[in-house]
Amino acid sequence: MGGSIFGRFFRVSTFGESHGPAIGCIVDGCPAGLQINLVAIQQELNRRRPGQSEITSPRDEKDKVEILSGLLQTDEGWITLGTPIAMLIRNEDARPQDYSEVSKAYRPSHADYTYDAKYGIRDARGGGRSSARETAARVAAGAIAQQLLATQGIKVVAWVQALGGIQASHAFKEHPPTREQVDANALRCPDNEALPQMEAVLSAAMAEGDTLGGIVGFAASGVTAGLGEPVFDKLHAELGKAFFSINAVKGVGFGEGFEAATMRGSAHNDAFEAHEGQIRTVTNRSGGIQGGISNGEIITAELAFKPIATLRREQQTVKKDGQPTMLGVKGRHDPTVLPRAVPIVEAMGALVLVDAWLAQRLAKL
Amino acid sequence: MGGSIFGRFFRVSTFGESHGPAIGCIVDGCPAGLQINLVAIQQELNRRRPGQSEITSPRDEKDKVEILSGLLQTDEGWITLGTPIAMLIRNEDARPQDYSEVSKAYRPSHADYTYDAKYGIRDARGGGRSSARETAARVAAGAIAQQLLATQGIKVVAWVQALGGIQASHAFKEHPPTREQVDANALRCPDNEALPQMEAVLSAAMAEGDTLGGIVGFAASGVTAGLGEPVFDKLHAELGKAFFSINAVKGVGFGEGFEAATMRGSAHNDAFEAHEGQIRTVTNRSGGIQGGISNGEIITAELAFKPIATLRREQQTVKKDGQPTMLGVKGRHDPTVLPRAVPIVEAMGALVLVDAWLAQRLAKL
Amino acid sequence: MGGSIFGRFFRVSTFGESHGPAIGCIVDGCPAGLQINLVAIQQELNRRRPGQSEITSPRDEKDKVEILSGLLQTDEGWITLGTPIAMLIRNEDARPQDYSEVSKAYRPSHADYTYDAKYGIRDARGGGRSSARETAARVAAGAIAQQLLATQGIKVVAWVQALGGIQASHAFKEHPPTREQVDANALRCPDNEALPQMEAVLSAAMAEGDTLGGIVGFAASGVTAGLGEPVFDKLHAELGKAFFSINAVKGVGFGEGFEAATMRGSAHNDAFEAHEGQIRTVTNRSGGIQGGISNGEIITAELAFKPIATLRREQQTVKKDGQPTMLGVKGRHDPTVLPRAVPIVEAMGALVLVDAWLAQRLAKL
Amino acid sequence: MGGSIFGRFFRVSTFGESHGPAIGCIVDGCPAGLQINLVAIQQELNRRRPGQSEITSPRDEKDKVEILSGLLQTDEGWITLGTPIAMLIRNEDARPQDYSEVSKAYRPSHADYTYDAKYGIRDARGGGRSSARETAARVAAGAIAQQLLATQGIKVVAWVQALGGIQASHAFKEHPPTREQVDANALRCPDNEALPQMEAVLSAAMAEGDTLGGIVGFAASGVTAGLGEPVFDKLHAELGKAFFSINAVKGVGFGEGFEAATMRGSAHNDAFEAHEGQIRTVTNRSGGIQGGISNGEIITAELAFKPIATLRREQQTVKKDGQPTMLGVKGRHDPTVLPRAVPIVEAMGALVLVDAWLAQRLAKL
Repeated sequence: MGGSIFGRFFRVSTFGESHGPAIGCIVDGCPAGLQINLVAIQQELNRRRPGQSEITSPRDEKDKVEILSGLLQTDEGWITLGTPIAMLIRNEDARPQDYSEVSKAYRPSHADYTYDAKYGIRDARGGGRSSARETAARVAAGAIAQQLLATQGIKVVAWVQALGGIQASHAFKEHPPTREQVDANALRCPDNEALPQMEAVLSAAMAEGDTLGGIVGFAASGVTAGLGEPVFDKLHAELGKAFFSINAVKGVGFGEGFEAATMRGSAHNDAFEAHEGQIRTVTNRSGGIQGGISNGEIITAELAFKPIATLRREQQTVKKDGQPTMLGVKGRHDPTVLPRAVPIVEAMGALVLVDAWLAQRLAKL
Repeated sequence: MGGSIFGRFFRVSTFGESHGPAIGCIVDGCPAGLQINLVAIQQELNRRRPGQSEITSPRDEKDKVEILSGLLQTDEGWITLGTPIAMLIRNEDARPQDYSEVSKAYRPSHADYTYDAKYGIRDARGGGRSSARETAARVAAGAIAQQLLATQGIKVVAWVQALGGIQASHAFKEHPPTREQVDANALRCPDNEALPQMEAVLSAAMAEGDTLGGIVGFAASGVTAGLGEPVFDKLHAELGKAFFSINAVKGVGFGEGFEAATMRGSAHNDAFEAHEGQIRTVTNRSGGIQGGISNGEIITAELAFKPIATLRREQQTVKKDGQPTMLGVKGRHDPTVLPRAVPIVEAMGALVLVDAWLAQRLAKL
Repeated sequence: MGGSIFGRFFRVSTFGESHGPAIGCIVDGCPAGLQINLVAIQQELNRRRPGQSEITSPRDEKDKVEILSGLLQTDEGWITLGTPIAMLIRNEDARPQDYSEVSKAYRPSHADYTYDAKYGIRDARGGGRSSARETAARVAAGAIAQQLLATQGIKVVAWVQALGGIQASHAFKEHPPTREQVDANALRCPDNEALPQMEAVLSAAMAEGDTLGGIVGFAASGVTAGLGEPVFDKLHAELGKAFFSINAVKGVGFGEGFEAATMRGSAHNDAFEAHEGQIRTVTNRSGGIQGGISNGEIITAELAFKPIATLRREQQTVKKDGQPTMLGVKGRHDPTVLPRAVPIVEAMGALVLVDAWLAQRLAKL
Repeated sequence: MGGSIFGRFFRVSTFGESHGPAIGCIVDGCPAGLQINLVAIQQELNRRRPGQSEITSPRDEKDKVEILSGLLQTDEGWITLGTPIAMLIRNEDARPQDYSEVSKAYRPSHADYTYDAKYGIRDARGGGRSSARETAARVAAGAIAQQLLATQGIKVVAWVQALGGIQASHAFKEHPPTREQVDANALRCPDNEALPQMEAVLSAAMAEGDTLGGIVGFAASGVTAGLGEPVFDKLHAELGKAFFSINAVKGVGFGEGFEAATMRGSAHNDAFEAHEGQIRTVTNRSGGIQGGISNGEIITAELAFKPIATLRREQQTVKKDGQPTMLGVKGRHDPTVLPRAVPIVEAMGALVLVDAWLAQRLAKL
């Protein structure tokens, strides 16, 4: 089946190995008549791109996106035609030789071994399809989804909520930061108190050739009540799938998440009240979703990222034939995936929400 | 779109309101030639059924399943024909009047309000489609999936790992309990030390008309390396969607889950070794999945369930027109969903794995 | 994959062997708020049912449909909830013994051999899943689709256009008959001139234990311009698939159909004109579809049905082991499938159109 | 929904306006380990390309395909990785100005009006997405499908069976021509007797600025019994959809096609016999498919193409505002689509068969 097509209505089909000629995607199902800001698409790619700061790897991929179809230039700017939107990003800085050692041994906690087990063949250059580079195509598609959602007043934002055990303020769940606040520092943590502590643990890990995991917070505001399908395709089930599809995500929670497991019903329930003629909940422990359907409150989620598996240390592993070997990767690699994961989380959240918004057009006569 | 169809190959289509004439499902895509144990299907439904013990509600739904199609009786027993398998469960003990008060007010943290927001109409009798009764159909379909997986040596098991803040032993992650151990007590917690503490917190909550959340552990053993698709349809992304589609699940983690966010790469990575000619990992912090594809180790997950929203206390809420009201539900309701959730988690896990196992038939020439 | 799920939005999942306990379907994705006429659903089933006249087989299946879910009884009648609508039809008149001989030999031009080749197992009782009885579930689902289309002013009608080489008037393509005109005689041919000739060729064939093929005409009126997707999911491509999925259909044409192959462009093109402020075509040789999208004219199609394969004569064939044998089926069987195919064609046409109508809600911002 | 994704397993997602920067596709779901002949892909594109002879338009699009992903260069040549295969074809010879007049008026029997009705916006340059140029992407994907089928001994071939009313020999249905025989002349008609007559009617039509319709024959050999799903996804239903999705196809028949409608059962039925230990049919009036499943005989179909709508004459039409106007297209256009349709028909047939072949891997335990 491939696994590279996402969405039921706003369908994104991605392609590309990290060190092949190009990566990209086709978006099939974007409604006609949407005005597209091309600069904003490139900006999202820039936010995901490596080499933005000292803590991200200096490989300069540039990631210039070329739009091949689906838009028409009019007096009102670029408008979607309702036809597939194809986007192409060339791999300009691929250096296959950096990965020559990799092809001989299975990197621990990478996908080298499992790809071989699945396909019997693997593109060992930089992880091929399992590389995080693949997410650039998601970010491009997500940028269009975000522009569509913006016409409906729906905004998504993500931020670094925790790094290496250092937690940012829990207040962001109730009052999400703006994207400007998030992007104000290289770590994309909008909590100025937690920030220096995060920087400290990160420096310590880097000094030892080690890497750090952390938590990304996510919030969607402006989502009207009624989005999401019942039973299997619940809104948070679709978001959950989308988030777990991001490399390195090992846990996802909505609202109180795992905290909910320790609470009593009387403490967890969100009482209803009428607020300026609108039915609202007094609290938002449900994270904006009840019974799998949005209730009009802010949708909140947390994603747990494991630490990056590529270490600047020797690690024990085996070769394809099972012979033990030590693996020391020398290329430059990020000490944490968290800051660059922020635009990816936003993109995946936007893709799910745009699909749910389209689905809701079908719910009632 | 409905949202009531699950799976890409082994496709389950469910139907039924909790107080309508019946619930049930169609399984389309089960391979031909599978010998079916009808008793085992009914046993799974019995495990999910209410009224099994004091801590589950005494409503006796019986849940007798009738198989309407897709099987042929032969000398070797009932065999799948490769055609759709329809299963029907009549609602015999429906008492709509118990819910008359519900229809006037929105129960806090239930799906009453969101269904109205979505559809403009709602079956208020017992929650209609949002009732947990819907999961009986999943359990029936999952029972067939488990019989198919058993032919491949794949077993799934779930258990109560935590209740009301009381944690069972973490050793289950490495050494999952047997189903017999799980079913040995009404709480379905295989840790005899934690069990009395869980019973105590549950009694305390019940006495106050309150409810408890908790954590269900999940393990799948016998899964060969190579199952799961890369990119969007990663094995744990599909499992994540499946688990989040279960009522009351607010968090899901694989392997170390949210713990992974606090770890360094050197502590989290699973080193490879050759073990009796097979490539294995020394540790299993990845929970049996790397790059979205199974690596041959035990697949482990945890699901956080919020406490049941229906309390035997008065709660503040509003009516459809926004008028404030107090809601006191008098029917008998479970103080926790956890023990009955165990077979549902197993069913959803099995549905995902059987789909991944079928998908792998397509991966290689 | 099974092959028993149809539609992208209004998704119909069918089940049931012809001589098993029941057949039926689930409709997932019907919008909420549609008022359903239950009697009209049963009427459609009655129109498809055998035993309506001398020329259809006297097996009295009754085909009483029971609706199991998805509807709510209100003061305005039965209303769809937006949840799955399950419909059940018991097989009451199954006589497996009529088919005992069949199980030993492969009936010529039936699906016995191909089912065995595909699945390695087959329900030989009456053709099992390959029996035309399966279409009753389609007709039930199609009846709901037709009620939904009626709210938009869209009507479908089918009729017997040719039988055993006798053609009815070609004027029906331009001026489709009403359903009343179609149902006015047992052959469902609205051309009173052609009717006696058709009856004559049918009697002659029956007298010789033989069967006849023919053509069913189809028309959909009230379809606004813009329905259907470009490229792969063109409106007539979806209709084509739907029509070819009906047992015994060997040819499908839209507009001029195969006649178009003999025409010049200047003779085939439909010139545009403005008609009472609306853009219309002067002629309708395209059959209401251009570029795969409806143009507001009547959608017209023709379906070629092969003669029924079951003859009341001895036929040469082989047993499963390849041994030659003669096969003489003694049960009563229709001499032509055409009149009973009429409501099936209408049902399949309606399912495609309701899907296209829903899809169009997603086409524009 | 877009409509630009085809297939359930071997999924092709296409993009591109005829006069935008590029067209292309992604193939997701091609099994890993398939050796790919890149030259053969380009050859198929060359066969579809305009400018091959006097009777096809001299616009030289070159259609050089660039493969962007999914293949790995090994010692055994290019091998599929199991990951998405993206293919890019630049539009090098686009001359938008040729179509300036088109943008003002609706070309009769084109998709201009229906696209406007559907999307409210349209790329008027050369038909945009509705242009036959879109089919180049199908041909590229189909070329890969054909290479996959070749490993199983399955071959597809198409040819011009009729043009402007001139029929080629009906013997091709029983004994399909080879591709070499088809490509031996510019009209792709393997019947040397009919060929000069076809050339004569075509010359006559061209001289009058007119165009011709015709019939393309299709045959697939080497298809084992058992391919195709019952009920909705019958093999000929999927082929029917695929064929009707090709621009200008107005009719499709399998086996005897519309002829079957005039036959008696005793004349149409295919008797079974054992032939060298294999169960075969004595005749093949069913066209290799019974009950929607292949029976091991040659699969045969015919596709009726309407004449090209673009004439080198003035035609009556209206502008967007309904004002009547005369339209005279001056660009060079083909007098018939038939010869260039041959590789497109082969491609679509191959896409369906490869999907059915993959599906069959899931049919039995």
